[in-house]
Amino acid sequence: MNDVERRRELGQQLRVDSIRPSAVAQSGHPTSGLSAADLMAVLLDGYLRYDFDDPENPANDRLVFSKGHASTLMYAMFRAADAISDEELLSYRQFDSIFEGHPTPRIPWVDVATGSLGQGLPLGVGIALAGKRLDRLPFRVWVLLGDSEMAEGSQWEAFEHAAHYGLDNLTAILDVNRLGQRGETMVGWDLDVYAARAQAFGWHTIEIDGHDVEAIDAAYAEATGTTGKPTVIVARTAKGKGVSAVENKDGWHGKALDDPDAAIAELGGVRNLRVEVAKPDPGEPHRFPSGQLELPTYDVGSEVATRKAYGDALAALGSGRGDVVALDGEVSNSTYADIFAKAHPERYFEMFIAEQQLVAAAVGLQVLGWRPFASSFAAFFSRAYDFVRMAAISRANICLSGSHAGVSIGEDGPSQMALEDIAAFRAVHGSTVLHPCDANQTAKLVAAMADRDGIVFLRTLRPATPVVYGPEEEFEIGGSRLLRSSDDDDVTLVAAGITVPEALKAADQLAEEGIRARVIDLYSIKPLDVETLGAAAEATGRIVTAEDHWAEGGLGDAVLAALAELDERPRVVKLAVREMPHSGKPDELLAWAGIDADSIAEAARRLVRATAAV
Amino acid sequence: MNDVERRRELGQQLRVDSIRPSAVAQSGHPTSGLSAADLMAVLLDGYLRYDFDDPENPANDRLVFSKGHASTLMYAMFRAADAISDEELLSYRQFDSIFEGHPTPRIPWVDVATGSLGQGLPLGVGIALAGKRLDRLPFRVWVLLGDSEMAEGSQWEAFEHAAHYGLDNLTAILDVNRLGQRGETMVGWDLDVYAARAQAFGWHTIEIDGHDVEAIDAAYAEATGTTGKPTVIVARTAKGKGVSAVENKDGWHGKALDDPDAAIAELGGVRNLRVEVAKPDPGEPHRFPSGQLELPTYDVGSEVATRKAYGDALAALGSGRGDVVALDGEVSNSTYADIFAKAHPERYFEMFIAEQQLVAAAVGLQVLGWRPFASSFAAFFSRAYDFVRMAAISRANICLSGSHAGVSIGEDGPSQMALEDIAAFRAVHGSTVLHPCDANQTAKLVAAMADRDGIVFLRTLRPATPVVYGPEEEFEIGGSRLLRSSDDDDVTLVAAGITVPEALKAADQLAEEGIRARVIDLYSIKPLDVETLGAAAEATGRIVTAEDHWAEGGLGDAVLAALAELDERPRVVKLAVREMPHSGKPDELLAWAGIDADSIAEAARRLVRATAAV
Repeated sequence: MNDVERRRELGQQLRVDSIRPSAVAQSGHPTSGLSAADLMAVLLDGYLRYDFDDPENPANDRLVFSKGHASTLMYAMFRAADAISDEELLSYRQFDSIFEGHPTPRIPWVDVATGSLGQGLPLGVGIALAGKRLDRLPFRVWVLLGDSEMAEGSQWEAFEHAAHYGLDNLTAILDVNRLGQRGETMVGWDLDVYAARAQAFGWHTIEIDGHDVEAIDAAYAEATGTTGKPTVIVARTAKGKGVSAVENKDGWHGKALDDPDAAIAELGGVRNLRVEVAKPDPGEPHRFPSGQLELPTYDVGSEVATRKAYGDALAALGSGRGDVVALDGEVSNSTYADIFAKAHPERYFEMFIAEQQLVAAAVGLQVLGWRPFASSFAAFFSRAYDFVRMAAISRANICLSGSHAGVSIGEDGPSQMALEDIAAFRAVHGSTVLHPCDANQTAKLVAAMADRDGIVFLRTLRPATPVVYGPEEEFEIGGSRLLRSSDDDDVTLVAAGITVPEALKAADQLAEEGIRARVIDLYSIKPLDVETLGAAAEATGRIVTAEDHWAEGGLGDAVLAALAELDERPRVVKLAVREMPHSGKPDELLAWAGIDADSIAEAARRLVRATAAV
Repeated sequence: MNDVERRRELGQQLRVDSIRPSAVAQSGHPTSGLSAADLMAVLLDGYLRYDFDDPENPANDRLVFSKGHASTLMYAMFRAADAISDEELLSYRQFDSIFEGHPTPRIPWVDVATGSLGQGLPLGVGIALAGKRLDRLPFRVWVLLGDSEMAEGSQWEAFEHAAHYGLDNLTAILDVNRLGQRGETMVGWDLDVYAARAQAFGWHTIEIDGHDVEAIDAAYAEATGTTGKPTVIVARTAKGKGVSAVENKDGWHGKALDDPDAAIAELGGVRNLRVEVAKPDPGEPHRFPSGQLELPTYDVGSEVATRKAYGDALAALGSGRGDVVALDGEVSNSTYADIFAKAHPERYFEMFIAEQQLVAAAVGLQVLGWRPFASSFAAFFSRAYDFVRMAAISRANICLSGSHAGVSIGEDGPSQMALEDIAAFRAVHGSTVLHPCDANQTAKLVAAMADRDGIVFLRTLRPATPVVYGPEEEFEIGGSRLLRSSDDDDVTLVAAGITVPEALKAADQLAEEGIRARVIDLYSIKPLDVETLGAAAEATGRIVTAEDHWAEGGLGDAVLAALAELDERPRVVKLAVREMPHSGKPDELLAWAGIDADSIAEAARRLVRATAAV
């Protein structure tokens, strides 16, 4: 067989192997694999440089199936590359198999989870950015896109950023099979529309017949030879290509074929071609120097915003660790990521007002082992919540810093106030949620974040708060701090962030009335210090929690969950924001929301009286 | 003064009035108003058709400030239109003022809250869609866009959908002042780039000098005369225009001016021009007929997926109520919104795979009084979480239906499983969270949703579940259902959705062992039936909650929060998903996650034994 014939045969093999697993599972998306099979055959046979025996090789190309539902096509490629057995291929979607409905990094040759559409290209931008600007290796990032997912706005964030950063190591392969899940896309087979859009966003474009292996080869050659800008290959294909029962027919998305045996016969039967996938040239990634970590320190009694301490500490961490990189969503002078940007410009990436791309880039960077810290207003991480959710499925290790939490931001009003962020980030698998109250504590936690696996979220404050901890104090993730306590406390006040100074003032007020209040700074909201909380519950039997967050899913609910199975459950009064805030001064708003010192003291007073009376 | 002179003067007045409130508040975004002042002067004086005395007039044009931080410019327009006094203008950002840092519908002439960038145009698409396809009135939607926010992917969802639906009643005014918060945008002053992108997305484009009132007038005339497609006016402007201390200078975003008096003097001083804003021609909105509501019914003992009942009930509701409209994100054959689409094609809008636009369109439609039901997989509403958050600030009344909740979806794997949706939606102000377990209950709740204010979320299941309730039973929002109870129950099982049939089976198992289990179907997770829960807590002292959701922020935490202040708090064991799921059969996954009947029975058994031993 010559190259062309072999690749045609390989395409047919990938089709057959896209169908077979779904026939066993009796579910899956075989028709979505059929449309892209020729595109993937030529890639595997001629362009992908990948050592399947060494997926950790930093010089490997990276392949992202943004249309993750076409996973059987990816697994078929693995079989053709002799990376998996036929038995493994056919274990698709079974409980004990790593070959799931959509690809995840449980598979050694998969870097990021896909399956929520419109995420593969933003993730690819992050990986390509690492290759070009950090690792400085000539690997290429290939992203297979479905046409239906081009309706996701996140795609255009990726298009713009890829061009802005000149990512000519990134090639998008757009499989225009015309049909989405429930019908035709808005664009259909009008390839020119996709090309015009991509060009307007700064990309090189190539339009081809996606079933012509010679045209595909020429397109990949042109893409790899294009410098200064990324390339998108816009390929006209047919969904279900090669199987007459389903080819270019509506109503066959996400279904096993009625007659897989007939389909396989029509495609020429099962094949056992093996591809010797080209290995990458050896290459060592660039590394930035690591030095002594010298965290910033702040004087007790001074007033510093925790967001400022974040920026100071991150810049220091960047000097201490060469693997730390930072990104921000066009608010670096508010989040203070600009301090890092000035100190380490080679390791800072401006993501502009595009929070989905911000988080996706962080996920992409960590694929190569970098430790990204991405920052924005905490409220605006809600824009990227699906990306955070998927990052957890990707087993990504990323640090996110959200500033301007809660009503304490004041005048800007509710659109800028994060009031749901603790709830949202707690409900991410394996996440960490930190909310420091002072600058020294923030600095210590920023350093700790860099060693923490999973999605690590830091919540910082806009206004300056008093420095209550000395710079010598250590703060562990999962810990808490007893700020006031005695052997005969009447009530426990649990606070974090802006409510810590309020709780301390409340304790002072209560002390004057003879009520002894224990004060816990629960800076680590997830994981949470059950021992200290449990001891306080046992000692006082009464807890008041105070948080600058909605009442649902935040600090108070985290405390309740931690204490739910104790032998004796304390009575817990939860102070939180319960009405829609508006503009005003921070102090006015804390009082209005009922989370200031007076409100905390009053709640504690009532609780002590009510339970004393029982 | 002739028209041109008057409009120039009006532009200067709007500049002065953009500065004055921020000078009083000593915060705000005056320079962002200065760039767009001429654009807004000509709009107010020549093109906006709006009855400020009657903001509810359905024939009114609609103006959306997507760059909501330029709010003082909007308030300056209100003053020029004689809608507000100078005193009101200067109350900006004060605690008691409705003139907040970013506009919200607390102001009578504001339809939607802005301040999270990239949302105004998607919202405008929804409003324009209502005008064109539902109300069928000739009003026009004007959206003022900042250039920095063009990096948000949501903008391109809006561009594509506006063109797809031929929204020639929509005009976007793009204020290209080059400068974002912390520096230049990716595009700078290259107007051609914006125009090329918009054209590639199907829009008519006009490039102008945004400070030339004659060019602005011509552009608006051209826009209003353009049919078949929306128009974007790409206007080159200078941030801080007219004030030499800040004009086109970096570092002046979001700050009050150092010397506002000098700036006002440079602009020619305070003016008191009044604009007679043109009123719209009277017009009556189109209405669809309402008929008898005949909800679908299902036989007890049959098996029906709640997502299917959603589709059936929604179609029935559409026949009963002419104000009900539906939208879906390209999965209508999975969410069963396609049943509504077939029954009421004039009131169904396909939003393709663009969940931000999906939710934004719903918010836009409800501005005109329609009752939108938007559906997708529950997991994918995480893509639009910021839009849901902002919808609450917009005081929007929208119904969202998320299907494919939890591990019970099975083989498709974690990317398609909503496991954070209850936590996320609970943490939205004024939200309602419903999670029915059977088809008849779903139908009743769908009908109830249409009368509920705020963000109303319904969580439905992929697999068929047994119909346990007769079609005659009524289900209120805020209620629950006691499925098993006696006077001497040992333990309470609280479930919702897929865990209800599991809890019933568990109760059967326990009964055989002599353990009496009360079973509560907590289908209304927010608001929640505290009375029934409290009675169960008092009666049994032991609660097991079971949910197909992460342990954080879901059903279990909602129960704990409801019981936190009782005199005697029960011990609560929370069963939930605690490890990252993968593909498998639904039953395998429910067992693996520890939320199936056996797991619930075992937890109850242990709890009874442990506490009996105490």
